[in-house]
Amino acid sequence: MTEPLHLHPDRLFPADASTRTLARDLYEAVAALPIISPHGHTDPQWFAEDTPFPDPAALLITPDHYVFRMLYSQGVPLEDLGIAPKGEGTGRTVETDPRAIWRRFAEHYHVFDGTPSQFWHDWVYAEVFGLDVRLSAGTADLYFDAIQARMAEADFRPRALMDRFNIELIATTEDPLDPLAHHAKIKQDAWNHRVITTFRPDNVLDPDHPGFAANLDRLGQVTGRDTGRYDGYLLALEERRAFFRAHGATATDHGHPTAFTADLSRQDAEVLFNRVRNGRVRAADAETFRGHMLVEMARMSLDDGMVMQIHPGCWRSHNAPVRDRFGSNMGDDLPVATDFVGGLKALLNRFGNEPGLKIIVFTLDETTYSRELAPLAGHYPALTLGPPWWFHDSPEGMRRYREQMTETAGFYNTAGFNDDTRAFLSIPARHDVARRMDCAFLARLVAEHRLTETQAYRIARDLTYTLAKKAYRL
Amino acid sequence: MTEPLHLHPDRLFPADASTRTLARDLYEAVAALPIISPHGHTDPQWFAEDTPFPDPAALLITPDHYVFRMLYSQGVPLEDLGIAPKGEGTGRTVETDPRAIWRRFAEHYHVFDGTPSQFWHDWVYAEVFGLDVRLSAGTADLYFDAIQARMAEADFRPRALMDRFNIELIATTEDPLDPLAHHAKIKQDAWNHRVITTFRPDNVLDPDHPGFAANLDRLGQVTGRDTGRYDGYLLALEERRAFFRAHGATATDHGHPTAFTADLSRQDAEVLFNRVRNGRVRAADAETFRGHMLVEMARMSLDDGMVMQIHPGCWRSHNAPVRDRFGSNMGDDLPVATDFVGGLKALLNRFGNEPGLKIIVFTLDETTYSRELAPLAGHYPALTLGPPWWFHDSPEGMRRYREQMTETAGFYNTAGFNDDTRAFLSIPARHDVARRMDCAFLARLVAEHRLTETQAYRIARDLTYTLAKKAYRL
Amino acid sequence: MTEPLHLHPDRLFPADASTRTLARDLYEAVAALPIISPHGHTDPQWFAEDTPFPDPAALLITPDHYVFRMLYSQGVPLEDLGIAPKGEGTGRTVETDPRAIWRRFAEHYHVFDGTPSQFWHDWVYAEVFGLDVRLSAGTADLYFDAIQARMAEADFRPRALMDRFNIELIATTEDPLDPLAHHAKIKQDAWNHRVITTFRPDNVLDPDHPGFAANLDRLGQVTGRDTGRYDGYLLALEERRAFFRAHGATATDHGHPTAFTADLSRQDAEVLFNRVRNGRVRAADAETFRGHMLVEMARMSLDDGMVMQIHPGCWRSHNAPVRDRFGSNMGDDLPVATDFVGGLKALLNRFGNEPGLKIIVFTLDETTYSRELAPLAGHYPALTLGPPWWFHDSPEGMRRYREQMTETAGFYNTAGFNDDTRAFLSIPARHDVARRMDCAFLARLVAEHRLTETQAYRIARDLTYTLAKKAYRL
Repeated sequence: MTEPLHLHPDRLFPADASTRTLARDLYEAVAALPIISPHGHTDPQWFAEDTPFPDPAALLITPDHYVFRMLYSQGVPLEDLGIAPKGEGTGRTVETDPRAIWRRFAEHYHVFDGTPSQFWHDWVYAEVFGLDVRLSAGTADLYFDAIQARMAEADFRPRALMDRFNIELIATTEDPLDPLAHHAKIKQDAWNHRVITTFRPDNVLDPDHPGFAANLDRLGQVTGRDTGRYDGYLLALEERRAFFRAHGATATDHGHPTAFTADLSRQDAEVLFNRVRNGRVRAADAETFRGHMLVEMARMSLDDGMVMQIHPGCWRSHNAPVRDRFGSNMGDDLPVATDFVGGLKALLNRFGNEPGLKIIVFTLDETTYSRELAPLAGHYPALTLGPPWWFHDSPEGMRRYREQMTETAGFYNTAGFNDDTRAFLSIPARHDVARRMDCAFLARLVAEHRLTETQAYRIARDLTYTLAKKAYRL
Repeated sequence: MTEPLHLHPDRLFPADASTRTLARDLYEAVAALPIISPHGHTDPQWFAEDTPFPDPAALLITPDHYVFRMLYSQGVPLEDLGIAPKGEGTGRTVETDPRAIWRRFAEHYHVFDGTPSQFWHDWVYAEVFGLDVRLSAGTADLYFDAIQARMAEADFRPRALMDRFNIELIATTEDPLDPLAHHAKIKQDAWNHRVITTFRPDNVLDPDHPGFAANLDRLGQVTGRDTGRYDGYLLALEERRAFFRAHGATATDHGHPTAFTADLSRQDAEVLFNRVRNGRVRAADAETFRGHMLVEMARMSLDDGMVMQIHPGCWRSHNAPVRDRFGSNMGDDLPVATDFVGGLKALLNRFGNEPGLKIIVFTLDETTYSRELAPLAGHYPALTLGPPWWFHDSPEGMRRYREQMTETAGFYNTAGFNDDTRAFLSIPARHDVARRMDCAFLARLVAEHRLTETQAYRIARDLTYTLAKKAYRL
Repeated sequence: MTEPLHLHPDRLFPADASTRTLARDLYEAVAALPIISPHGHTDPQWFAEDTPFPDPAALLITPDHYVFRMLYSQGVPLEDLGIAPKGEGTGRTVETDPRAIWRRFAEHYHVFDGTPSQFWHDWVYAEVFGLDVRLSAGTADLYFDAIQARMAEADFRPRALMDRFNIELIATTEDPLDPLAHHAKIKQDAWNHRVITTFRPDNVLDPDHPGFAANLDRLGQVTGRDTGRYDGYLLALEERRAFFRAHGATATDHGHPTAFTADLSRQDAEVLFNRVRNGRVRAADAETFRGHMLVEMARMSLDDGMVMQIHPGCWRSHNAPVRDRFGSNMGDDLPVATDFVGGLKALLNRFGNEPGLKIIVFTLDETTYSRELAPLAGHYPALTLGPPWWFHDSPEGMRRYREQMTETAGFYNTAGFNDDTRAFLSIPARHDVARRMDCAFLARLVAEHRLTETQAYRIARDLTYTLAKKAYRL
């Protein structure tokens, strides 16, 4: 028996009738605002080449770690989803038939009940593909055929979808060694105000990165600087930042294992650099070097105006057998408890009082919302709170974020919404969830006479549009 | 003035009228399903002998640490509740009159306002004893007499109550040295599919256990294996597991102070075993040995199919004077912050990718729900989330559990409900709370158009019945 | 365009109509009860001298770190708010015109949207100053003039406001070296039952306190005891406690960086005292000494009956540049993760089983509510839970507190409400928020049939009035 698929216009709004009406009215005032997507992981080649997307499985399943981690948790081998080993493998045959992959996903669709993945997917099915029955084993083929047919149509190209999705601006993320060829092409096409890059230097700042030494060699070749020396290394970084800014970047991004920062003297930094540069990397050295380089990045940001994003507290590739067989980003990156008050002290004591600097912090540890992040952002001029991130980019996650951040940090120390995704089709759905949940929260505050309606309308617009543009200097 | 006692049919459902109707409808579909109680601490002798329970105080107060810890926190000496010192005592006279104990409890009943203990007790008073006024100092004697009279009736025997409570299956918990005589009797009576045992080997895995060395000696005697050597010790454990399986066990249970696991080489394990076996137990050795033995237990589970339960993060007997005077389990076991992502890594890297293994984890540290446990269970095939445990087996605790687990782990990486109790009469009340809170949560998701009604009915049934049977291989 | 300012009579009550009615009814039963303010930081001179308050900025902005930290976080220099450097300064001119300061605050008033500061301020504007339009850049002068005019009136004196605010009792906080001259004057005026002191000995217990050695010298002079020796030091502390009791104190207060306690032998304590007394303070020594002195304070409390308050887990003066330029209490005190179960063990094992001792604990780390504090308070007779503190003295903070504490600790292990403020005008607003949020919580429990109305009315009164008087022995 097939069930109808229907996106209810009041979805995510509180059940109480009067609060729901308020939420709906607030939402209607922001629903049509353009999407600002200042932090994400879409592929710039899509926008540069404007080529069609491949098959339904490669569009919606294989690249989405939210989706395949959940299927894997239920015992579905990664190979059965068309994910090929990058390492030693397990010997199991890799599925190559997209329809078979799609059917497997459909059979397990109920394991996503109550998750944002299902909520986003249902939006894509209904809004992008016009499907009106729910996905299940019984409708898998109907879905596959409908999606495949729609994908072949002329207006299903990345740039057309950008327009259709009302995306005013999207930022991709590249590392300092990237030649930014796609962004150059985009710029040439006079499309550059729509797609910009972000400077993500982890692979040349983190001595624990597997390719650290080789990356520094390449950084030297690309810039003509002597990256065997600390001063040459800093100059090379500054030049790559300038190169990224020329390709639209207004921000850097830093994905460190912890929030630790350190403010070394020039001499100590040189000694440490020489040690890690030559491959003698002890764990404590790597941590200190990463922490020091965050402070260096802040110093450069104060010079060149780039907004600094810090995404700490993720244990990458926790599942060693999966990492060895399939590589990284296989759904086994896991949050860890994070200390911001201690960790960021060196950075904030050095640069946190600069109103001209903008540091946006994210967390996977929700306990830090009310205990650390809101108090920090409610004091330090340079600090702004990034939106609920990754596992917390969800209705309940957003609700907890507003409930735990607002009373100490207010709304105006926050940075609007980020989708942080490479699942391009889900971007409007994700922003829509954020708009709905923000309006639901504001409606509750109005219903409880903690805000006036006038305040709520202003804030709704600011959370949706203004704060993101301001925070990212767009 | 006495107040009426009334169990409202809509208790625990959300106040909003339309959501309440949805919750009630969902609840009505699962209210009559049989109780599966796969983890608990009832006494198998009750079911083997089917003898009457003793007096009201010994039935409802003395054995329930939820109850006497709260009275103790309000200044009521343990002796006044009939709890006799097991150690040196305080010299205070131990109350022996059950009616006096009951009166003391009744005088303090208001300190339980808003707690699950009061909610469960009220259910027992109304449903089991047919009382229709609330417990207070003024109604203490009326209660005592009514309960005492009812307890003497023929159908107030354990097996009759099992039927009346619609308990399809209940698991008790025994240690490896237990001869399981009661379970043998139950089996002989062809009642064994109703009452099964669980293998709880802490007292032979934990070098910090006071009787560790003596327990290993006895383990050797019971099995005829040489538990002076590591290989004999492992064989002895395997044999006791087989013995427990023959008495119905489908699961093991492990109550370790932390979630730490270690995967030692055979040689290192032998060296460590020899050290702790001979009583030279340093704190770090004990922790490593416990952690390593969890990995060994997983290895054995993969062989014999026993589901593995891990209950970490409890500081047992925090109150040293109380422990010295009264022994353990005196209401002074306290939760501590727990690291699952780091702690379970060795276990999960070794066996977490086995779809044939089932590990059910519990926590007393709710901060790990969204930060660690849901992300872990949403990736590792072997990992399943146990229900909200102990202090969190409560309406608000259950609500937080669903709100913080579901978006990342879904419903289908969870294991249904456990009552984890030795308070036999409260078992239906506890399951009823879980069913009501799950239906309340699902009703909210339907009201907010995050699930369809069809989905919600399926999930309600699965959370109530199917998932527990599947998780525990029943 | 000016917006009307209106305090809705149903503010903070749940939106659901039937629950709201219940909340309103409960609130009406407690709204007129007198205010008990047993922990705060108002200036006793106000009540001793009964002199008028200065200008609007000095009344409402400059002394309120909740207010100026938020403005500072938005890039407003502290000097622009009239805050003068106490240290080296930045060279920026300090604003001396109260009207200019007030305008700056008014321009930024939207950054407080959704915060308790705005909620309290709006109450003060409407209730104390009779303003009926909202504060904004456009109404800044109107506000300034109205407030200034009202402040000059005869009945706007501290003692008159005490009566008008229906404050039955207020406690201030002084250190052991304070001569308590203002409290002596208050006593002389036979006003002492309204204003009492609190013994806050951090500056003579904490070896890390900048003036520790000099403070001990002065403690010796004041008492005539030899504070160069441990026994003389203890005697001096006991005498100052007695002096404080003679000035109304019923409680001590301890603001330690952590919850660590230690129970040293007399000999070890003497050796440690000699080390820290002579300025040889290592970090571990300071922590041990503070922890040991908490146990000594408990011992003295058992003798003299003073209630012991512990406020741990705050990193004072996190922003080193701000501390160096402006001093302490500049809005840069930050919460840190706190371990109560481990930290308080020594204290609780020594004295926690004494029903005659009362220890009230507070936390800035909300994760400890359900994990540590409720289980501790639900067992140890001596332990009582202080209200939600500082950053958590807010509607959402109060809701989380009740939701996370009540099921394990009940209502009767809690201590009512504290305002903990030096913002005198906001005291009624803060207590009003607490009463409303408690009634909202109770109304939900009644609506969900978890409490009867009879229970809820009793509890509402106890939370508002009775429990504070009992906890503080007033």
